[in-house]
Amino acid sequence: MQFFLEGFRPGDPDVCPAAPAWRDPGGGLPETVDVLIAGCGPAGLCLAAQLARAPGVRTMIVEPKLGPMEKGQADGINVRSMEMFQAFGFAGKVSRESVWINETTFWSRDPDRPDRIRRVGRVQDVEDGLSEMPHVLINQARVHDMFLDVMRNAPTRLTPDYGLKVADLSVDPLGADFPVTVRLERTGPEKTGEVETLRARYVVGCDGARSAVRRAIGGRLHGDAAHEAWGVMDVLAVSEFPDLRMKAIVQSDHGSMLVLPREGGYLVRLYVALDKLRPDERVAERGLGPEDIIAKARRILHPFPFEAREVVWWSIYEIGHRLTDKFDDVPSNAVDTRTPRVFTAGDACHTHSPKAGQGMNVSMGDTFNLGWKLVSVLTGRADASLLHSYSAERRAAAKGLVDFDHRWSRVVGAREETADADAEMPRFQREFIANGRFTAGLTIRYAPSALIGEDRWQKLAGGFEIGTRFHSAPVVRLADARPMHLGHVIEADARWRIFAFAPDDDTGAPGGAIDRLCAHLADDPASPIRAHTPADEDIDAVIDVRAVFQQGFRDLEHGDMPALLRPSKGCYGLCDYEKVFCADAKSGPDIFDLRAIDRARGCLVIVRPDQHVAHVLPLDAMPELSDFFAGILRKAAPG
Amino acid sequence: MQFFLEGFRPGDPDVCPAAPAWRDPGGGLPETVDVLIAGCGPAGLCLAAQLARAPGVRTMIVEPKLGPMEKGQADGINVRSMEMFQAFGFAGKVSRESVWINETTFWSRDPDRPDRIRRVGRVQDVEDGLSEMPHVLINQARVHDMFLDVMRNAPTRLTPDYGLKVADLSVDPLGADFPVTVRLERTGPEKTGEVETLRARYVVGCDGARSAVRRAIGGRLHGDAAHEAWGVMDVLAVSEFPDLRMKAIVQSDHGSMLVLPREGGYLVRLYVALDKLRPDERVAERGLGPEDIIAKARRILHPFPFEAREVVWWSIYEIGHRLTDKFDDVPSNAVDTRTPRVFTAGDACHTHSPKAGQGMNVSMGDTFNLGWKLVSVLTGRADASLLHSYSAERRAAAKGLVDFDHRWSRVVGAREETADADAEMPRFQREFIANGRFTAGLTIRYAPSALIGEDRWQKLAGGFEIGTRFHSAPVVRLADARPMHLGHVIEADARWRIFAFAPDDDTGAPGGAIDRLCAHLADDPASPIRAHTPADEDIDAVIDVRAVFQQGFRDLEHGDMPALLRPSKGCYGLCDYEKVFCADAKSGPDIFDLRAIDRARGCLVIVRPDQHVAHVLPLDAMPELSDFFAGILRKAAPG
Repeated sequence: MQFFLEGFRPGDPDVCPAAPAWRDPGGGLPETVDVLIAGCGPAGLCLAAQLARAPGVRTMIVEPKLGPMEKGQADGINVRSMEMFQAFGFAGKVSRESVWINETTFWSRDPDRPDRIRRVGRVQDVEDGLSEMPHVLINQARVHDMFLDVMRNAPTRLTPDYGLKVADLSVDPLGADFPVTVRLERTGPEKTGEVETLRARYVVGCDGARSAVRRAIGGRLHGDAAHEAWGVMDVLAVSEFPDLRMKAIVQSDHGSMLVLPREGGYLVRLYVALDKLRPDERVAERGLGPEDIIAKARRILHPFPFEAREVVWWSIYEIGHRLTDKFDDVPSNAVDTRTPRVFTAGDACHTHSPKAGQGMNVSMGDTFNLGWKLVSVLTGRADASLLHSYSAERRAAAKGLVDFDHRWSRVVGAREETADADAEMPRFQREFIANGRFTAGLTIRYAPSALIGEDRWQKLAGGFEIGTRFHSAPVVRLADARPMHLGHVIEADARWRIFAFAPDDDTGAPGGAIDRLCAHLADDPASPIRAHTPADEDIDAVIDVRAVFQQGFRDLEHGDMPALLRPSKGCYGLCDYEKVFCADAKSGPDIFDLRAIDRARGCLVIVRPDQHVAHVLPLDAMPELSDFFAGILRKAAPG
Repeated sequence: MQFFLEGFRPGDPDVCPAAPAWRDPGGGLPETVDVLIAGCGPAGLCLAAQLARAPGVRTMIVEPKLGPMEKGQADGINVRSMEMFQAFGFAGKVSRESVWINETTFWSRDPDRPDRIRRVGRVQDVEDGLSEMPHVLINQARVHDMFLDVMRNAPTRLTPDYGLKVADLSVDPLGADFPVTVRLERTGPEKTGEVETLRARYVVGCDGARSAVRRAIGGRLHGDAAHEAWGVMDVLAVSEFPDLRMKAIVQSDHGSMLVLPREGGYLVRLYVALDKLRPDERVAERGLGPEDIIAKARRILHPFPFEAREVVWWSIYEIGHRLTDKFDDVPSNAVDTRTPRVFTAGDACHTHSPKAGQGMNVSMGDTFNLGWKLVSVLTGRADASLLHSYSAERRAAAKGLVDFDHRWSRVVGAREETADADAEMPRFQREFIANGRFTAGLTIRYAPSALIGEDRWQKLAGGFEIGTRFHSAPVVRLADARPMHLGHVIEADARWRIFAFAPDDDTGAPGGAIDRLCAHLADDPASPIRAHTPADEDIDAVIDVRAVFQQGFRDLEHGDMPALLRPSKGCYGLCDYEKVFCADAKSGPDIFDLRAIDRARGCLVIVRPDQHVAHVLPLDAMPELSDFFAGILRKAAPG
């Protein structure tokens, strides 16, 4: 964590100095806002947490409920989301409070005693080396709390407007500054049904599967359902089932269930297959309740007793896999003529079964993609056309998930194990292993575009696959010899990063590749840093350059590094000492080996504000570097 | 973290359910309290945080200042204190927010150019394997904040009474329940000087070097001073000194200084030797100020420019090393006839120079030793004679520190490097390395007593040295395959732990050593658990038994473990799944190798509530085990 750059301040460093308020907290609704977010679920709050950090952006987030969620549906946090939490600063807090899923076990009926189940397989839940983060489960409500903390501590001190829902909206494509007119309806006890209107530059519908925002822009969820009722329950229970603290997938003669441990050491979540539904039947018609879930769970878990002591939360649902055609308000045939004003994210544009634990993750992933783009456009750094990339990138990601979910639901829901008797491993275990990287959230790969380079130089850093998330690895910071993860320098602050990996003989000395790169970036009029950084901002305000050397930290001197890597910042011109890293010789193979970086040539890895690798380039590819950023960022006003 | 044992509760799990209030928060002072703590420094708050967790203990903590500290003197947190913070639940928060001291460098005058300094040595600050925790620096005020959070979240919701200081007190040795009468003086603007009286069972003076509590019980600080004025300063500065983000010890022709990086990446702390004092001179007489510190620092650091941009805090002090004879109110000749009622801790009973970064650590160490003893006595678990051990154990620890500080101050303050020219390494570096375990806080070893066993069976676990702190090592929890540190199961909750390390062939099966031990502990009338656990409390409420097996987690079944290791707890009788651990085969040598545990015989390691190893015993030493606890704990009332 860096703080005190603008002088010492007592107290919690997570609490940023407050920006001037643009709204009276006790007052009525504003007439206009920059961004209106509908819905305080994971998608909405993840977006709000990013926008709250941009003091110039006037954000409002509304939620029909009257206060923060106390217990929620979702609970799965895959490693990719943990990596994102790191950028928000609360991965450690979640790690401590959540339950870690370390092992997944597989149970099916015992062929010798078909009324019983037995464990038929087990697998380490997250493959070694996939991420420095664990796969965890925690109540969605606690994730909300952490985003709310980020919002409250941010310069804008953003808090939700509870008791308010988006009823409808309209977009005036010719409208100038605030083209979206939104009708907001009060849901609180005092003014129920009262409607007010405001105008917004942008509206983001994170308002769930029945999204009014989606409806207003003509979006529809397409897809199918499995016509099967499932029950889900959080329960404090006593059971002899041996894997109550593992993730366990059970297929018995009585049907399928998933057992998931939950935070705190005692709570358990169950997903239980209940009844097949007729094609035209709605799940509510069956009138199923918690006792049905428990009764079925007991039958499936036989011969292991299972006694519920406190049902904390339950729900009956039908598996559906649905997707909208577009995640914004611009029809495909109008992309060239106008830019999006309204977006949907999370369940508002894609729904799937909860059993692969993906819902909350992909919803937050949506708005982690959108957040920095909105900040970039609203602060004038980027043209509004950047916003087209949101629907393009995230719909493809959601499509992958819906397709996966379709297959996986049927694997889990299969009544019987269909593997050949001579197969080495049951089918659900094979599928689980094959899908490990997918369920970890690590297979999302954005396609080449203005934001994602072609793979011409991919071989310079085979382990930083262009389009995928930056796969962190251990390094040692030169100035203070601190062992740490390189990826943890990325914060959710809408900045771009350039990681310059040095060739093997480069020590940062004058004339070396890193020195030439830094000189170019600092001084050449063609430098993207000079082109896109406003004169009154710190040199790393838009593009943050970090160098990684192959030597150990005792072999290099921080004082010998090029000036760009020791920048003077803030009102006092203090040196930022955190730009230079060395190989970590202690913890096994170093980052160059782990990520297959060309040791002879080094390379540049450009990382987007949402942690995705945008490009890999040679260290001397100055024109390509400038062109890349010129395709995304506007020229900054000269000083 | 474990929670929800007594049912689900929404919100932050660190916030415990509130106990019934015993005091009106808006009202006046109570007439009586169980414990009155004088002073909201590290010693006082560390004690308050422990007592706050005991709902039956009525604690009050007073502080003459009118609110929490905003910037403080102390900043060094050694690895031992970080281990203690882990038991309070905030080690992760401190790790994230603090600066880590990874490397210490040594500078002295360049013999070829005596007006300049040059780096003459460097050393890894904390030796590998010494602790799983880093050595960090953070403003004392933030450590206070974290203890205040623990207090606020504890069942008693304890908050300090600011604007109130202990003026005087008297003890009536014959007094019954509340033998200490305390005169409290208001310091706030409204009632300055107003005095009120209350009576306490116990008073703990954490009121600094000029402690009124110490004075009241006739204690005096003895020792000497180095007659040298030093300046200390927290400063935002710009400097070409290469090691501004390392811990650097500098000895130049102009004198000595220490450079310490501070949290946030920009702030630096300097300790600078200023002037020699005459034997009878007081440091204040010199009228030294921040400009003197800066001017001297610039001379010492030559040829590296140093420019202060914001002086955050500064002080001029004289090195003194002083100690009281006794840390409680019972004279040595009266130990057999009465028990202590008044204690001193921290600077109230020992002072030393700040340069070894020990002050805050040893102060917190004092009250981490005292806290569980007070809780044990006040809840009726132990006889009041237990309290004699506080002064005995902590005065020896403080004596070690004062002696060390005496030597180390003179090494650091030496004007000139006195090593032989042919010595491999300068003297200050040699001394630094030799003292590494000491400054890390790891050499404190409590002497044999009722609380610390003899070393007859020490060889069964050579790496758990009796009397020293429990040296954690990695294990895997059986029930959920979670890799973790065994020491992290110890919380600051006044409970004892028995770690049972299994012999190599033991799987927990009936008839094995672990099973026999568990059967004895659960069922035998001679079992210390049966003897000392009240019938209406959970089986692990007083003594918490954990087992560690040599097999991997896939080789054992949690369901096959003895009942004591799968206890039913709380209002629902839920199973506690967190009692059994396995060797971690992945992370190098396992805990049995790392801690030199006899693999053939296994052993018992008894750990005190303050994380110190109390005893090592054979697995079948049932009578010794019972005798040990009978020497400390009272018999619990039968159910």
